[in-house]
Amino acid sequence: MEDMLGRGYAIDPGTALRLLIEKLPSKFLHEKIVKIEDSLGMICSQDIISEEDLPAFARSTVDGYAVKAEDSFGATETMPIYLNISEEVFMGTRPHFVPSRGEACKIPTGGMLPPGTDAVAMFEHVQLIDEKMIEVLRQVVPGENVIQSGEDVRKGETVIPRGRKMRPQDIGACAGIGVTEVRVYEKLLVSIISTGDEIVPAGSTPGMGQVRDINSYVLAAMISASGHIPFRKGILKDDYQSIRAVVERSLKDSDAVMVSGGTSVGTKDMIARIINDIGTPGVVFHGVSLKPGKPMIGGVVEGIPIFGLPGHPAAVSVCFEIFIQPVLALLSGLRERYPQYAARTVDARLSKNVSSSQGREEHIRVMLEEKDDSLWATPVLGKSGLISTLVKADGTFVIPVNINGLERGEIVEVRLF
Amino acid sequence: MEDMLGRGYAIDPGTALRLLIEKLPSKFLHEKIVKIEDSLGMICSQDIISEEDLPAFARSTVDGYAVKAEDSFGATETMPIYLNISEEVFMGTRPHFVPSRGEACKIPTGGMLPPGTDAVAMFEHVQLIDEKMIEVLRQVVPGENVIQSGEDVRKGETVIPRGRKMRPQDIGACAGIGVTEVRVYEKLLVSIISTGDEIVPAGSTPGMGQVRDINSYVLAAMISASGHIPFRKGILKDDYQSIRAVVERSLKDSDAVMVSGGTSVGTKDMIARIINDIGTPGVVFHGVSLKPGKPMIGGVVEGIPIFGLPGHPAAVSVCFEIFIQPVLALLSGLRERYPQYAARTVDARLSKNVSSSQGREEHIRVMLEEKDDSLWATPVLGKSGLISTLVKADGTFVIPVNINGLERGEIVEVRLF
Repeated sequence: MEDMLGRGYAIDPGTALRLLIEKLPSKFLHEKIVKIEDSLGMICSQDIISEEDLPAFARSTVDGYAVKAEDSFGATETMPIYLNISEEVFMGTRPHFVPSRGEACKIPTGGMLPPGTDAVAMFEHVQLIDEKMIEVLRQVVPGENVIQSGEDVRKGETVIPRGRKMRPQDIGACAGIGVTEVRVYEKLLVSIISTGDEIVPAGSTPGMGQVRDINSYVLAAMISASGHIPFRKGILKDDYQSIRAVVERSLKDSDAVMVSGGTSVGTKDMIARIINDIGTPGVVFHGVSLKPGKPMIGGVVEGIPIFGLPGHPAAVSVCFEIFIQPVLALLSGLRERYPQYAARTVDARLSKNVSSSQGREEHIRVMLEEKDDSLWATPVLGKSGLISTLVKADGTFVIPVNINGLERGEIVEVRLF
Repeated sequence: MEDMLGRGYAIDPGTALRLLIEKLPSKFLHEKIVKIEDSLGMICSQDIISEEDLPAFARSTVDGYAVKAEDSFGATETMPIYLNISEEVFMGTRPHFVPSRGEACKIPTGGMLPPGTDAVAMFEHVQLIDEKMIEVLRQVVPGENVIQSGEDVRKGETVIPRGRKMRPQDIGACAGIGVTEVRVYEKLLVSIISTGDEIVPAGSTPGMGQVRDINSYVLAAMISASGHIPFRKGILKDDYQSIRAVVERSLKDSDAVMVSGGTSVGTKDMIARIINDIGTPGVVFHGVSLKPGKPMIGGVVEGIPIFGLPGHPAAVSVCFEIFIQPVLALLSGLRERYPQYAARTVDARLSKNVSSSQGREEHIRVMLEEKDDSLWATPVLGKSGLISTLVKADGTFVIPVNINGLERGEIVEVRLF
């Protein structure tokens, strides 16, 4: 993992992530039962199977007259068919009458079809003659304007598969089949350890040479936004023993560990050493062909992923999206089909030329601006240590490893923050 | 607002939304103070202004040697310049020594530049001769590899503008300038009233002709997902007096009111009547050229928006996105620049021809599937009353008002759920 100068050997981000995921054992996840109204965004840990047909009875999908379809055959505007009006169907009640052949029953949308009827003629295709008779102006076929019993969900059918992140409609489907509680995986607890002799708490006034802790807040919020629980473990000096102690403790009480700061080459490979010293397999990658984010460390100890994150907020943000979010998604029990498309993106035109070094994947922060009927992306320049560039930016786009740069006017896909 | 048959006159969704927004007065929003770590996704109600320069001192952006840039002028690999090593800069401390001309001080990334130095030569461009001397192999210019005092944020600068929905980096920026609490707008309280003689609670066993309440769960989850607080007011029979009473009460205790069910034409225009009877301006639109969602009602009473939603879950979902989400965003104090691009979308090829009636905007539910290196969107067919089609679908795409349909192979933009 090191080149001749003892520096981390930079592999590409995709390979780094793959290597790390290979080292992660499949873990037992804790489960709990929650009310469906509290399950939004949680990962369902059971196949939810319907114990009944939905709907339980044939329902009308329109306002109209329930008929025996045969009775309407051949009806047209010029040659309407006359039917006698039978009793009316009311919402929420079972029609206890049995219409005779040649009879039609007024029925609202959602109403239960009376016995013997199998289709509904819409009001629009019916003319009322008097209180006792209608003209049907268009024939209906059996099943027309009707949802059959079991057409929505069949008894025994899996409505929500295990591993689904519960969406509003999934919660609605549970309600529809009478399931008011679901088993879900517990959220992941993610430890965040800030390191650096220069770091002081956000609430304090830094002395000269000191700066406030930014990264633990950025990381905690990104962890929350991804549906997990951040667990901030405080700020530590760059001291091997104290950092090691907190990392070891975090392996016991959390599902993933992030150490922010202390990952630059040179004086600062302490985090990698700690990860290797604590257990196996230890460091899986150290250094990736990524900008910002080059000094990123990924490791696994006792089946738990440990990430060493660069000190710059912009790098933290990119590394979280590329490495941490997919790993947490995997650990959380999520089995969604298209998580890779889950980012909110928008196409925009580059407002200026952007160069990039070949051999690394570069993430460029941009501001979006609407001008001349186009959406323009303007790179937010500034050194990578700045938080203000992240606040000004609306999102990022990626220049892939093998591209030297892009020209003004080219379309880029901006991943929104 | 009514055509000759007394039915709602269908205007296009964009116009309907605009008309409704015009009737909404700008309301006083309640504020509260929260810790920054609890502010994710909340709307900031104040301009957050920095009371200090960030950083407070010039910092190195690399590991290297702090120098007076002039001392390096002309240095090349073949003609290096020799500098004496002065004291070392340590993280988090103010260097109390003053290097002489011709001296260089070892400095870590983030370290404070010693007085008299104005640039940093990276380790990569320096050769160590012995403990007391380095060769500089490339000249540096003043400011090179340095973040100047105030370069990130200037004292007096607005870091977070009022109306910003707090993102992780915004929270980090607050931490960076020592702001640990922020004023935010209170979340909106949104009442949900389910109506329908056929509707029973999700936890009960419906009799014949009855169905369980699905929509209040779908709506509540969509309200939560949008950052607001749902307030479910129970299930009411289709009775003018009881619905009116709960709507009137909800105008007092919530910021918006949704009534689900009871909006079809014919026997069921009771909700529109109630909205008009309670106050002014009352119903703003009733019926839109939208599928699903045609019978949608939008109204305003006492400055509070009231929505009458169709009974079908698929229509509820579309109407929420088109009408309710933008109105709630507006009411919540959000002033984001690009909310209209906020959806997660993905391009996919249609796997079959889809027809559409001209004159209405049609929202088609699709499943996504990767096949032959392309992403394909397959319409999820099924009558609009079904919840299972919503659960099977990954998202929707829109056929605009003036298009008759789309052909297999055409690219559509799928808005993911």
